[in-house]
Formats: sequence, structure tokens, C-alpha cells
Amino acid sequence: MTDHRAGELLLPEGFCFSALAAGIKASGRPDLAVVEAPLGANAAALFTTNRVVAAPVIVGRNNLKASGGRLRAIVINAGNANCATGKLGLRAAEEVCRAAGKLLNAPASQVFPSSTGIIGVPLPVEKITNHLSEALRATQPTQDAARAFAQAILTTDTRPKWASARFRADGEDVTVMGIAKGSGMIHPNLATMLVYIFTDAVASAGVLRDVLAATTDETFNCISVDGDTSTNDTVLLCASGASGVAVAKGKAARDFAEALEKVCRSLSEQIVSDGEGVRHVVTLKIEQARNIAEARQIARVIAHSLLVKTAWAGADPNWGRILAAIGRSGVPLDPGRVNIFIGKHQVCRNGMAHPFTESAVHQYMSLPSYEISVRLGRGKSAGRFVTCDLTAEYVHINADYST
Amino acid sequence: MTDHRAGELLLPEGFCFSALAAGIKASGRPDLAVVEAPLGANAAALFTTNRVVAAPVIVGRNNLKASGGRLRAIVINAGNANCATGKLGLRAAEEVCRAAGKLLNAPASQVFPSSTGIIGVPLPVEKITNHLSEALRATQPTQDAARAFAQAILTTDTRPKWASARFRADGEDVTVMGIAKGSGMIHPNLATMLVYIFTDAVASAGVLRDVLAATTDETFNCISVDGDTSTNDTVLLCASGASGVAVAKGKAARDFAEALEKVCRSLSEQIVSDGEGVRHVVTLKIEQARNIAEARQIARVIAHSLLVKTAWAGADPNWGRILAAIGRSGVPLDPGRVNIFIGKHQVCRNGMAHPFTESAVHQYMSLPSYEISVRLGRGKSAGRFVTCDLTAEYVHINADYST
Repeated sequence: MTDHRAGELLLPEGFCFSALAAGIKASGRPDLAVVEAPLGANAAALFTTNRVVAAPVIVGRNNLKASGGRLRAIVINAGNANCATGKLGLRAAEEVCRAAGKLLNAPASQVFPSSTGIIGVPLPVEKITNHLSEALRATQPTQDAARAFAQAILTTDTRPKWASARFRADGEDVTVMGIAKGSGMIHPNLATMLVYIFTDAVASAGVLRDVLAATTDETFNCISVDGDTSTNDTVLLCASGASGVAVAKGKAARDFAEALEKVCRSLSEQIVSDGEGVRHVVTLKIEQARNIAEARQIARVIAHSLLVKTAWAGADPNWGRILAAIGRSGVPLDPGRVNIFIGKHQVCRNGMAHPFTESAVHQYMSLPSYEISVRLGRGKSAGRFVTCDLTAEYVHINADYST
Repeated sequence: MTDHRAGELLLPEGFCFSALAAGIKASGRPDLAVVEAPLGANAAALFTTNRVVAAPVIVGRNNLKASGGRLRAIVINAGNANCATGKLGLRAAEEVCRAAGKLLNAPASQVFPSSTGIIGVPLPVEKITNHLSEALRATQPTQDAARAFAQAILTTDTRPKWASARFRADGEDVTVMGIAKGSGMIHPNLATMLVYIFTDAVASAGVLRDVLAATTDETFNCISVDGDTSTNDTVLLCASGASGVAVAKGKAARDFAEALEKVCRSLSEQIVSDGEGVRHVVTLKIEQARNIAEARQIARVIAHSLLVKTAWAGADPNWGRILAAIGRSGVPLDPGRVNIFIGKHQVCRNGMAHPFTESAVHQYMSLPSYEISVRLGRGKSAGRFVTCDLTAEYVHINADYST
């Protein structure tokens, strides 16, 4: 059984963390988190595909372009998403970067801003700028500081999320460590997914961009909770180079990609499994597809079917709902060649019922984490997708918010 | 306020109805429903777009083709969908048509079969054929018989659904009456939507097909409950010609199309509003779109967003969730031109918060049926879409099924 909890936190060299309460969250809890790379870092980022884009996403993208993928600090606030806030919102995000750059004696373009929280409310920018000096002075290259950072960026998450991996190359340790925010059951005012990954490998912004895109495609783009996409989603990868180990090619590149994937996979599973509503994390394996695109398309339709997700909540081996979801996926498949397995139990053979012991399958589906495989009989490609059930608690959390 | 209940039942001439209990439903309630058109009828049908298609859908489509759109009887069973049942399922559906045709002294191809209920279980075909003679002998051209028919085709619906409309042409009454089955909150084992519409107008199968396709596009294709498509969905339109009024062109054609749309709109709203889980029926009006296709695309994404649907369950005027759903619809719009209204209350102006009285909007959203308008600022097309909220009851109903 997979334990979807943050594990050991290995620190890459070259990054210092801090967090404090700036008064943005109504609760008074820490809500301003900063990272400084004292000697700078190369960086690459991926952002939400939503047409409605929060101001910090626009400013962060522009800054990375202007600095040529060079980064000195990240400033994140929780409690306010700075989204649907118009030109004032853009100016507020720029103001945060300018203030941090001034304090660090760095160009504003080397500061990366993030915001998460309520939408449509002006960002209280002075609360951030008034506390920036204190936050930047307090940064430390310690596990405790990184954990405090991981806590401060949360909104409705129930627990902080981090993951790390380490490999040796040229007699040196290379560390990859990621911290994420995002809740399995997406919560009021959009549960933005924010992911910050730090490494002391030596890599250009271009190398980072390529490996990040490939890894995200396999991990963060293959999880689904409720199909909603946030306006602020961000994945940022920063390399300080402090290990002296270049990871552009050869074995070091492969080891680096593997470490990055391990971190991203763990974070993505932590995101799915978080949230009070989730009782079951389900890994879908779509096999014998003609290509990866159709495997993912089918996985997405299954993962977003309310009928399938509610059946999972009841540990109900209702394969007919899965078959019907496959049928409306838009993939021109022959239902008569579809086989469905819940764990090791075959429940559907060539599109028809296959005898199984209902109590055994029900028991298997009562596990907090399990697998469903679908074989399409169309080709040799396969795709993997991590999703979750839909419980009445989810509805309560999301319906009872402002009333 | 719209009352989403079956109203007056006006009977078109030329159709006789009956229903009885054949022992297919475990409850022992009526589950076999038949219609006979003693002098025959012209007919056209539309079916599910799901690739997983139930046997009666395949046989019904083939029969209409073989008979040139001519129909003598409809035989419907509830309690078993005859889906994912392979070649045996096809043979069972054909057997039902053959038996009914023999009893009526008509070709099997003039019998239209439908099934709804559990998926993946062989159809108990003898239970149907053993009761067919009794059912066909009992048919009557009365409101009571039609009501009994409407009751017998239900599965998890909480109430029967019918609607009718009448107009005068050439000094004669022309009646359109529809009976539907399908539940707002889609229930265990797929809530098939079955719709049977009867008229005494004179119309060829080709005329019926054209007007049915246009009307369905505006009504049954513009409702959404949870985005799942059944394997058995069927809409059938039959014309006995008993009124003597031809409706192929002119004012009679327009009046007929209007009557048909009225019946289909009422039935589609009855379907959305049925189901224990539904507390709010929401009509989405997407305006200022570049074309109808993009208006519907945006409506569908809003209607399928779990975050939006759960906000509606709480009567929560959370326009940020609606804006974010619009943003991920795939339509390349400018969020800065989007305006959102809940009833008469504007809540979002040019993509940003617009001041509104939260208590007034919350009160409006507490109505069982209300409207949300979205203006895109892109063009002059508009689309209308009827959907509903997502409540914890929905999850309970669908999760607690087999456990």
C-alpha cells in the first residue's frame, strides 16, 4: 500500500526558506512564504491552461522571460488569489516583485510571485510589502524552515506536502526536493495547485524546461480530482547548481529525470489523496490503446464520470458504469474487445459480464488505494492516471461554504 | 415559476396503450409497456451516441430501416437494459419483435423494442414473450392506459413524465403527446432516457426525422445532469395520420414544430428536475457568443463543473467558479469581456467582481428553478441549457447502491 504522506525532507543546497503571518488569511495563520537563492538559480515553469489567468501567473511568466530564466527569489501569499482583479491586480503582483528585488538588490524580473486563495478580491499588497523585509531576513537553509514554508502556502489542504530524492554523480550528492499545495477535493474559491521544485544540479533553463514538461505530462497532468482547472496553477523548477553536477546528458541526466519524476509522482499522489472528502485513491491503467493520447482521453472520461466516482465511494464493483464511460469517450473503439480488471479480479470480458466474487472485489475496493485496469484490444500503448472517489463529504464541503 | 410536473394529458388518435407486471423488476411492479398503432404509424428515432450500445438500440435502428420508417407497435421493458449482453442480447431483442409481430400479424421490423434497467445481465426474454399476448390484447386508447404506460417504463424515476400540446389546422385538432423516462440525478446502472412522442398529424418518416432532429438539438441535447450518456438513450416520434392534417409545410408545419418543441421542452425539464438529489433546476443562458456551438460548449462546461454544481446546492453566488469554468472551456475568449448575471443581479463585470447584495442573490438562488446569464462580448449568438445542482443526496443514492 502506498502511503500518500510527505516523507523525508532532503534539502538541496543553495536555497533558504521562511514563512510568517502577514494578516492575509482571516485565521491569522502564516500566509507569506519566501524562498531565496542567495547565488541565484536557473528556472523553468509551467502554468494553467485556463483562459482566466491570475495576475501573478502573467507576471511570473513575463519575469522568467525577461530574466532569461534566472531567479533570485519566490514570494508566495496564501489567502488571496489575485485573480479576476484586472489591471490593479497586475500592478499589485509587479509591486511585490519590485519590493523584493529592491530588498535583495536584484532586478524585479528575478522575483517570481505566486498567490492562492479567494478570487475576485483585490490583493492587500501592503500586507505583503510591509512584511517582505522581515521574511527575507529570516530565510534559512534548514528542514524546519522548508517545513514552515510548506505549511504557509496551504489554503484548504489538510496537510503539507513535500517529497525529495537524492542520487550520486561524480562523487557528489544531487538532491531534488519539491513542495506542493493543492487539495485532492478541490475546495472553495478554486484549489490552486502550486508546486515548487528545488535542486542543486547544474542545468540551464532550457534543460529544466524540457525535463519539467516531460515529467509534468506523466505526473501532474495525469491526476484528476474533479476536472476543474484553477486560474493560478503553477509548477516551478529551480536549479542552484550548488552540487557542481551537470545533468544535461548521459547517466546524470537519466538519474536526474528519475529523481524528478519520483518527487513529482509523490507530490501528485499526495494532492489527490488530500481533502476530507477522499476515501479512495484509484490508479487507472489504460492498456492496449492505439496511442498514449487515446489512453489518457479514456482515463479522463472515467475519472470525471460522476457515476463511476460515486460507485467508488461505495466500493461498488459496477463495471457497467466504467464501460459506459469508455463508450462515450469519443475513441472509436469496439466495446466487444474491452476487458476490465479491478485489481486482479476480471469483471468484464469482451464487453460482457465476467463472473467474479462480489464480496472479494468489494473488499479490495474498500482499500484506501487500489488499481483498475482497462484493456482496449486496440494497440500497444498504455497510460496511467491517478484519481479519487466522490463522496457526500465533498459536496458538503463545497456547498456549505458561504451560506 | 415553472412547474416541472406532468400536466394535462391530451391523447392523439391512433394509439393504444397498456402495461402489466411481467416479473422483470424485483419489486414486482409493472415493467412491460406496449403501444399499438392499429392502423400503423410513420416513425423516426434518435439514439445514444455512446459507442457502447444496448441490443434494443441496434435492433430498433435496423427495424426502422428495414420497414422504411413504418411502425405497428412498441414493446418496452423496464428492469433490464439488455446491454453488454453480446449476441444473446441481440437475439433476445429480435425475439421480442418477432413474437409481437406474430401476434399482430405484422412484420417483426414494424415492432420497435426498448429496454432500461440493469446492465450486463441477460434479458429474461420469456418473461416478456409470455406476457406479450396479454399486454397487446389489453391496449386501450385512453388517458388511464397512457398513464399506466408512463408508470411502467420508469426505473429509478420518482414520478411519471408526460406532456402534450394541441393546435387546430384545417378545422381539425392535431395533438402531440410525449411520455418520457429518465431521472434528473442519474441513478444506479445508468439512467437511460427513453422518450416516445405520438401525434395524429400526417407526416412521412423523412419529415418526422427532420423536425425531431431540430427539436432534440434544442431540448434533449441541451439538458445535462451529470454528463454521463446512457447506452440505451432513445427518442422516438410516431405519426398515425389519424387527424388527416399534413404538417410538411406552411403554417401547419410551423404549428407542429412549435407543439413538438413545447412537449420536448417540458419533458426535458421534467427529466432534469426529477430525482431525490435535485434541489435546483438552473437554466443557463449563454449570450453574445460567436456561434451556437461555442455557446453550448461553454454551457456544458459550466453545467458539468463539480465546483459550480456544488455551489448551486448551497445557493452560493460564487461567480468565480463560473468564470473559471468558462475559462477552461476551450473557447478562445477574453475574460475581460465576460459579464455574469444571476437572475437580474449582475455579479461579474468585465471579468471582475461587480458589487451585489449577497443576501438577495442567495435568496434568489434558493428558488427551485432560476436563471444564470453569461454575456461573452464576442458576437450575437445565444444558447440555452437546462441543468441542476449536485447535492450530497445524489452521492448517497449512487454510492450506497450495491453495498
